[in-house]
Amino acid sequence: MSESEVNSVISEANLKEFDWDHFKYERILSNNSSRKVVFILGSCFEMPAIVILEKISFTQEQFTTENDKENFIRNSKLEKIFKNDIYENNYCIVDANLNKMKTTIIFPATEKHINKYTEQECFTFQETPELYEKITLPHITSEKFTVDWVYNVLEHKKEKDRIIIEDLDSEIGFMLLPDLKWDGETKETLYVTAIIMNRNIKSIRELRQKHLPLLENVKTKSLQAIKEKYGLDSTQVRAYFHYQPSYYHLHVHFNYLNYDSPGIYCDKAHLLDTVINNIKLMSNYYEKATLNFVVRKNDKLYSLFSDAKN
Amino acid sequence: MSESEVNSVISEANLKEFDWDHFKYERILSNNSSRKVVFILGSCFEMPAIVILEKISFTQEQFTTENDKENFIRNSKLEKIFKNDIYENNYCIVDANLNKMKTTIIFPATEKHINKYTEQECFTFQETPELYEKITLPHITSEKFTVDWVYNVLEHKKEKDRIIIEDLDSEIGFMLLPDLKWDGETKETLYVTAIIMNRNIKSIRELRQKHLPLLENVKTKSLQAIKEKYGLDSTQVRAYFHYQPSYYHLHVHFNYLNYDSPGIYCDKAHLLDTVINNIKLMSNYYEKATLNFVVRKNDKLYSLFSDAKN
Repeated sequence: MSESEVNSVISEANLKEFDWDHFKYERILSNNSSRKVVFILGSCFEMPAIVILEKISFTQEQFTTENDKENFIRNSKLEKIFKNDIYENNYCIVDANLNKMKTTIIFPATEKHINKYTEQECFTFQETPELYEKITLPHITSEKFTVDWVYNVLEHKKEKDRIIIEDLDSEIGFMLLPDLKWDGETKETLYVTAIIMNRNIKSIRELRQKHLPLLENVKTKSLQAIKEKYGLDSTQVRAYFHYQPSYYHLHVHFNYLNYDSPGIYCDKAHLLDTVINNIKLMSNYYEKATLNFVVRKNDKLYSLFSDAKN
Repeated sequence: MSESEVNSVISEANLKEFDWDHFKYERILSNNSSRKVVFILGSCFEMPAIVILEKISFTQEQFTTENDKENFIRNSKLEKIFKNDIYENNYCIVDANLNKMKTTIIFPATEKHINKYTEQECFTFQETPELYEKITLPHITSEKFTVDWVYNVLEHKKEKDRIIIEDLDSEIGFMLLPDLKWDGETKETLYVTAIIMNRNIKSIRELRQKHLPLLENVKTKSLQAIKEKYGLDSTQVRAYFHYQPSYYHLHVHFNYLNYDSPGIYCDKAHLLDTVINNIKLMSNYYEKATLNFVVRKNDKLYSLFSDAKN
C-alpha cells in the first residue's frame, strides 16, 4: 500500500483502535537475536500494523522483593536439559505476569515505518556543508517529515503525565520524558529524551554559538533530574544527539552508561559534551564541519548521496 | 568462602544436586540489560551457586505455527500503557510455556567463577588539555605500558605473514593486519587494524596538522586494500580510533559497517574522518579539545580523575 493510500484511509482507521485479537501476522521485518527484539509486519482491520516485541531485562527487585507473588524465584520452575560436572542447563518457566514483554504498536503503519524497521545494509557518507545545503536540507524540507507528535508533547496535549521535568522558556527550555524504548522504571536500561522547546533547530547541523545557553541548560537540568529521580550520577550517564536524527526537531538522548542502548555508535551518535566543546572551540563548527552519517540502502538519502558521489 | 574451602566440600556437595527450591539469592554479579542476561550469585545447601538467566530470542516459527497451543499471538494478551497518535505502548503477557528462559547453573561455584561474572561499572570523565598534562600523560609515562608487541610487528619479527599491506615510510607509513578478534575470513565481522610506523604518537590527543598526510595515507591505502581483498566498498567500512586507547601507539580500527563490533560506542570511538576534519578546521584541535572517555571502576585512571574532580 502506498503512502498516499495509507494517508487516505487514516481518518477511517483512527476510528478503530488497534486490536491484538484481530492482528494478522504477515512477515518478520527484522529480528535482533542478541537484543531479543522482533519487528513484525501484519495488519489489523486491513490496515498495516507494525508490532515490536522486546523481552525486558532483569531487575534486582524481582529477586529481592518480599512480596511472594512477585518474587521471581518462588514463581518459577526449572526444566532440566543436561548436566555436565558442575554445569547444568535448564529452561526456566516463569509466571506469565512476572515475564511480560514490552510491545510497541504502530498503527496504521506507513511505508516509511516499514522501511525503517526492515533489515538492510548500511552505508556511510560524508556530508560537507555544501552537500547539506544542496541535498540534505531540500530533502528535509520537501519530505515534510511530520513532527506533530513532538508538538503534541510540547503543547501538553499528549504524554503530559510522563514529563520528568520541563522548562517552558522558548529559547533555552525543554521537556524531559522517558524514551518510547524505555519501560520507564528499570535503572539498568534508563533512556530519557530532552525535547527542545525552540521549534527552529532541525539538528546539530544548525547549532551555533547562540545556542550554548540552551545546550548547557539541557545538560545541567537533565543530569540533575536523572540524579534526583533515578539515582544516577552525571558520570554514569551518556548524553548525545543523533545525526542524521530520526526526526528533525532538536532532541538529546540520555541513557545509563553501562547500557548498550541502540544507536550509540560513533557513526551516528554525537556526545552532547563534544558538541558543546566544538562550538566553544569554533563558534561556527557545525556550519563548517563535514559530518559523517550512515544510511540504509532504501533510504532516500542513500540514492541522493550516491548520485552526488558519481 | 575461599577456593580451598569450596574444594574441600565439593565431594560432599556432589552428593546433592542443585535444587531451585532451595536456592537462596545473595546478589547480582552482573546484569546485561541489552542482551537480557543476568548473572546471580546465591547458595544452595550452604554451597555457592551461580545462576545465569537469559531471555530467549524470537523465532519465526512462534508466529507462523498452525498449532494453536504454540502460537504466540493466540496465547498472549496486551496490557495498554499509553497511546500517542499512531504509536502505542503495551505490555504483552504470554503463556509461560511459550516464554521460557535459558538457565545455566554452576554448582558449586568457585571464586574464579564469581570474579569472571562480576561486572565493573563504567564512568565517564572529561579530559581537558590541562587534565591530560596533569594526569593522563604522567600516568601513561609512569605505568610504562609496554608496546613491545607492536614493535615486533613493525620490525617484521612477529606476525609478518599476517600483514595485509604495508608502507614502510617512517613518517606516513603503516601496517595493516587482521585484528586478533577477527577470524580473518568472515566478511560480516571484518575487523582489521592499521598500526602506524611513527613511534612518537601516543594517541589522537597528540595529532596535529603535520600528521594530516599520515592520516590521509592510512585512510586511502587501507580502504583500497579492504576493497581489493575483501570486496567492501569504502562506504561500507567504519574507520576509527579509540580514546583512551588500549595501547599508546597510534592505530586505526577498520570494520564492516553492518557489524556491531565491540568498542564502537560514541564515548570511546572517534571516526578517522572526523579526526581529519577537525584538524583541517582547526590545526590545534586536539591540543585544545576536551575529550570524554569512559573507564571502569578498577582502572587507575578512574581513581585519578575522581580525585581530581573532588
